[in-house]
Amino acid sequence: MQDLEKMFLEVKDTSELMIDLAYSSLIYNNKDIAEEVFVMEEMIDELTSQLQEEAIKRAIEDKNVHKALAVIRLATSIEEISDAAMQIADVVLRDVQPHPVIQLSLRESDVIITTAKVSENSELANKSLGDIKLPSRCGMWLIAIKRGKKYIYGPDKHTIVQPQDILIARGPPDGEEYFKCLAAGTNEE
Amino acid sequence: MQDLEKMFLEVKDTSELMIDLAYSSLIYNNKDIAEEVFVMEEMIDELTSQLQEEAIKRAIEDKNVHKALAVIRLATSIEEISDAAMQIADVVLRDVQPHPVIQLSLRESDVIITTAKVSENSELANKSLGDIKLPSRCGMWLIAIKRGKKYIYGPDKHTIVQPQDILIARGPPDGEEYFKCLAAGTNEE
Repeated sequence: MQDLEKMFLEVKDTSELMIDLAYSSLIYNNKDIAEEVFVMEEMIDELTSQLQEEAIKRAIEDKNVHKALAVIRLATSIEEISDAAMQIADVVLRDVQPHPVIQLSLRESDVIITTAKVSENSELANKSLGDIKLPSRCGMWLIAIKRGKKYIYGPDKHTIVQPQDILIARGPPDGEEYFKCLAAGTNEE
Repeated sequence: MQDLEKMFLEVKDTSELMIDLAYSSLIYNNKDIAEEVFVMEEMIDELTSQLQEEAIKRAIEDKNVHKALAVIRLATSIEEISDAAMQIADVVLRDVQPHPVIQLSLRESDVIITTAKVSENSELANKSLGDIKLPSRCGMWLIAIKRGKKYIYGPDKHTIVQPQDILIARGPPDGEEYFKCLAAGTNEE
């Protein structure tokens, strides 16, 4: 893939991660995660500017006005999605109290966000996400990992899961139980 | 769950469905799906107004100003996400040509949108989504079903899959192959 496509993909995936993290920060009333959404928003602003610049450069070469316009419009829309995610995270940052009712209703969603701690004897421990293939096994995928006091946001297939990691995952409610069993090492296959 | 929570959940889930459908319309250059995003946007506008009204009514009863403000802010953010989804769909509606490069790069995303046709001898045929448990089996979940010339948007656990249905699903790239096998009836377990 060339630059333009890579950049487009990066802003799109980052904006989706931001929405997931924003709702996570709300569910867990977690200011660290909310602050990460703010950091990502700055990154998106920078990336969308570059993307739009690149789209115009491309148009100068290939004379395809429609294509450049489409990319520019899409980039603007994605930037607005990331702004909205930031505002959701801002509710967590501004406020002194959690909102248990909203937290509860988020747990009833078609797609839930949940956490699980990796035990020493979990088969996930010390393996890469690429090897674990969590999404195709239980429908859940990781949006972040909490390791000690640090967070790894948007882990990829090369990320190694370690014992004691707290996995923050997104997926359908019916995948949650097996996901928790896998992390706890209590699944039997 | 009470009204406020139900309404909040509905706008949140609808806004996420809108983003998925907007990208689907882009990938498949499908104006029908893009138009559905516009229909949903009007629904969201109406729902968020009701949600904000309900939040203020609730505040009058329980005197919880912070809670009402949080709900109002969240509803506004979700409305902005749905506006952005509409703008993404608008790129498809305005334009006469597809954008193969963007379509290709969307196929490389962490989360892909794909389709599969249900064959007569697929085990999915004539079963409800609740029984199929697609998400926990292959990580993919359905955002829409194309049946003949009609679409069913945001199918739920009661929706029955029929032979010849075209399933539009979202999920991790590594779940796609098994999803297609399930729909084609070529999987062996």
